[in-house]
Amino acid sequence: MTKTNPGHFFEDFKVGQVLEHATPRTVTEGDRALYGALYPTRFAVPSSAQFAASVGLDPAPVEDLVAFHIAFGKTVPDVSLNAVANLGYAECRFHRPVVPGDTLSTASEVIGLKENSNGRTGVVYVRSTATNQRGEVALDWARWVMVHKRDAAAPAPETVVPELAAVVAPEELVLPEGLDFTTYDFAAAGEPHRWDDYEVGEKIDHVDGVTLTDAEHMLATRLWQNTAKVHFNTEARPDGTRLIYGGHIISMARALSFNGLANAQLIAAINAGAHTAPAFAGDTVYAWSEVLDKAETAAPGVGALRLRLVATKGRDESMTLRGGDPSTGSGGTGKYAPGVLLDLDYWALVPR
Amino acid sequence: MTKTNPGHFFEDFKVGQVLEHATPRTVTEGDRALYGALYPTRFAVPSSAQFAASVGLDPAPVEDLVAFHIAFGKTVPDVSLNAVANLGYAECRFHRPVVPGDTLSTASEVIGLKENSNGRTGVVYVRSTATNQRGEVALDWARWVMVHKRDAAAPAPETVVPELAAVVAPEELVLPEGLDFTTYDFAAAGEPHRWDDYEVGEKIDHVDGVTLTDAEHMLATRLWQNTAKVHFNTEARPDGTRLIYGGHIISMARALSFNGLANAQLIAAINAGAHTAPAFAGDTVYAWSEVLDKAETAAPGVGALRLRLVATKGRDESMTLRGGDPSTGSGGTGKYAPGVLLDLDYWALVPR
Amino acid sequence: MTKTNPGHFFEDFKVGQVLEHATPRTVTEGDRALYGALYPTRFAVPSSAQFAASVGLDPAPVEDLVAFHIAFGKTVPDVSLNAVANLGYAECRFHRPVVPGDTLSTASEVIGLKENSNGRTGVVYVRSTATNQRGEVALDWARWVMVHKRDAAAPAPETVVPELAAVVAPEELVLPEGLDFTTYDFAAAGEPHRWDDYEVGEKIDHVDGVTLTDAEHMLATRLWQNTAKVHFNTEARPDGTRLIYGGHIISMARALSFNGLANAQLIAAINAGAHTAPAFAGDTVYAWSEVLDKAETAAPGVGALRLRLVATKGRDESMTLRGGDPSTGSGGTGKYAPGVLLDLDYWALVPR
Repeated sequence: MTKTNPGHFFEDFKVGQVLEHATPRTVTEGDRALYGALYPTRFAVPSSAQFAASVGLDPAPVEDLVAFHIAFGKTVPDVSLNAVANLGYAECRFHRPVVPGDTLSTASEVIGLKENSNGRTGVVYVRSTATNQRGEVALDWARWVMVHKRDAAAPAPETVVPELAAVVAPEELVLPEGLDFTTYDFAAAGEPHRWDDYEVGEKIDHVDGVTLTDAEHMLATRLWQNTAKVHFNTEARPDGTRLIYGGHIISMARALSFNGLANAQLIAAINAGAHTAPAFAGDTVYAWSEVLDKAETAAPGVGALRLRLVATKGRDESMTLRGGDPSTGSGGTGKYAPGVLLDLDYWALVPR
Repeated sequence: MTKTNPGHFFEDFKVGQVLEHATPRTVTEGDRALYGALYPTRFAVPSSAQFAASVGLDPAPVEDLVAFHIAFGKTVPDVSLNAVANLGYAECRFHRPVVPGDTLSTASEVIGLKENSNGRTGVVYVRSTATNQRGEVALDWARWVMVHKRDAAAPAPETVVPELAAVVAPEELVLPEGLDFTTYDFAAAGEPHRWDDYEVGEKIDHVDGVTLTDAEHMLATRLWQNTAKVHFNTEARPDGTRLIYGGHIISMARALSFNGLANAQLIAAINAGAHTAPAFAGDTVYAWSEVLDKAETAAPGVGALRLRLVATKGRDESMTLRGGDPSTGSGGTGKYAPGVLLDLDYWALVPR
Repeated sequence: MTKTNPGHFFEDFKVGQVLEHATPRTVTEGDRALYGALYPTRFAVPSSAQFAASVGLDPAPVEDLVAFHIAFGKTVPDVSLNAVANLGYAECRFHRPVVPGDTLSTASEVIGLKENSNGRTGVVYVRSTATNQRGEVALDWARWVMVHKRDAAAPAPETVVPELAAVVAPEELVLPEGLDFTTYDFAAAGEPHRWDDYEVGEKIDHVDGVTLTDAEHMLATRLWQNTAKVHFNTEARPDGTRLIYGGHIISMARALSFNGLANAQLIAAINAGAHTAPAFAGDTVYAWSEVLDKAETAAPGVGALRLRLVATKGRDESMTLRGGDPSTGSGGTGKYAPGVLLDLDYWALVPR
């Protein structure tokens, strides 16, 4: 029994502690193919080696979310095996494209701890960094997660809540070396919409929906070596359902957003993310986006759009984020509207 | 809303119009592996790099249908997003093998239009050409599809119905450069049957059946970037089922045909194809073939067989194509027999 | 009809007969990715090119079981298409790692025959050898399987029962050329347990469970070109279920065993294996292991553990192999305990 990993409990974490996560993982063309089978993605950069080369990316990177899921999956056995809930993300930056042949490893530093008043759980804040085989940073992010205590009687640690930026400042976005959208082929990419065509406050209903299956979300979740048992084992939950990995919803929504955001080729940063409701097989996932901000970048022909990507169970043509009351607007502070599964705030790179 | 693609309606098409379809797609070894996981294929050329090289194909091509599905998938957003039904294929020729690393793009020319008498739909004829990254033609084909009108009151266009060959003439088949079956290894390929062993009129019951699942047909259909919503969204159809992409049935039947046609290694042309009934998860697909014609080719040791490939729901050992009356024969003109899902007429290349 | 493969029946086999199985199969990075999507594996050698190179394996091999399943799948059409049951394995040795680009072919020699007293079935013993494109042995194994007679009246052959070793002797294990665990990175691999930390008789409950789906086991089984119809066709069995390929359970259990045996990186031999009960979609598979023996090896820093890997339907924290009576112990000779699906005896290579 003692040889298996019970995961860390709240009282096992100390501020400043560094966790070197296991199992480096080499990315392959097989990952690219599987990602395309699991999600309805058609972004031209990860789809076509020639298109990628034409914008300065040679070899063609895999989807940024492939890197995210792999890097994130490594943290699960050490950080969230005993998690109650994943509470949020912040300050996630993609430092360089990940290409087949790259090997990703992840390490996390505990940057905050806060015991809950019930004494049975606490919130752990970590900053995680994924590096490639050359030791270069591929991406990093902060995350906070509610974790069970092993023993409710264990004393509470000193509360440390890190200051995390609400948004990655545009000037801190890392642009892939060589990225150049000046000769961007809009016909090949599938839509004519440029950076200039998007306005702050604009919302886009991405129209299409996908009904989830258990086999597919398990294939995806395993591919990222994410081992959280609630995703795989019907005996792990009282109702006999498998909870779908939140990252599956992120990728599904991002792929659906192609329809209206086909030129949002690359993700430069994730500013914030909340999984607002669980999803299960049989749910039909739709997505809508809101343009939150725009920024110029130093790369030729490249602009940045700050987007809110919302996944919903069932289509919500009113695109209501909170309160069930469209007048509240997405900036409202009420509860999330029924059916909202994901509220993700990210920076995308688009041609100007 | 205006940024999403509503697809083209019947009145948007003009004869002579050229549609450059989006999202070039690079083929990888991941596609080969996924194809082998999705279909019970065992043809030796796409399975083995050494076998392929031994017949003059180095590197080993992927299955011809991988190229077909990818090339076809690109046309969906522009041609058939608002389709009522895919009516037929003709004059599909495979011009060269597709190998991992090739990037396929597709363009279509509208070659015919015919409004239906109900005034609500019309038939669109397109000729589509898929080219690789060197601009060489990989495959081309004609297809006609019934499409909704946006506005029933829109005037009917002049009727243009293209003349399409009922069969690709044997002398117009394109043989892969270097193909040579003179030292073909029948033991490795799995069956001893040569071109000479097949007789026109011969029928082969391929015996095996596969029960379909939703997860698998969605994985396949996404892999080809085919976005038709009826395949993915249980809310898109009144009965809450997902309609299975017709190409999934083509690939399943082709793979099942290995048992009796193991040496039909390559598809040179598709003469005609009809999806005669919809298929759903839970259906068990079987296949039978009929030898329609035979032809010699200029490539060493290579003969061509013209085959009818029929997929059925449930096994039909009587191999009845039409009318439910075996005496009618497959050349009959009655309705398709119950259970027939697909009637595909193609040229295969086999060792002599 | 005569062109399809009816499979061999008991009376078709002769001792000394050699069967050259069809369809050589090239292994790709796509297989590695799919294996990772189908099974929750996190062993560092097949996961990371850098880790593999750091222990002397460059390029990184795929999981040993990928090679096993592919090699085994080739034997099905000739050996077990008409099998009643797969009865056992013995003397399976992995002679060299299989890497992407390798092409595997399999041949089998009939080494024993024994008709059953009912006169309707018999046991066929074969020794199978899988070779790569250079003609080098990749793995070999003995297997015996109960096969239907075509004609109960056919005379029984002379009974020949081969002598098969109960265990591959440690000195007969083949160590991969260049394997060196002296600088093994335990943190990257995920667990600190060395060869010295395991004791003969020790049992490990691997804790995690996975609920099976039909789509996933079919994807896996097709990937190995295993065509046994009971796995794919709900019409092939009276109860309308699909029987899960026993190899799917082997791979699932092996992947689950990571939790406690993360450093059992490579399989050197399979001493014995029994599929003790069928598995179906909806079953939740767990695994436990018992250390049966330990041996030193000639490779630097490499020890061998002989392990019993048991897969169960539902978790059995008592880790009872036989009789439902824990006191019987795993060495007992009673019937297998309810819920036991697999009893696999193998040698793994671990760092010292």
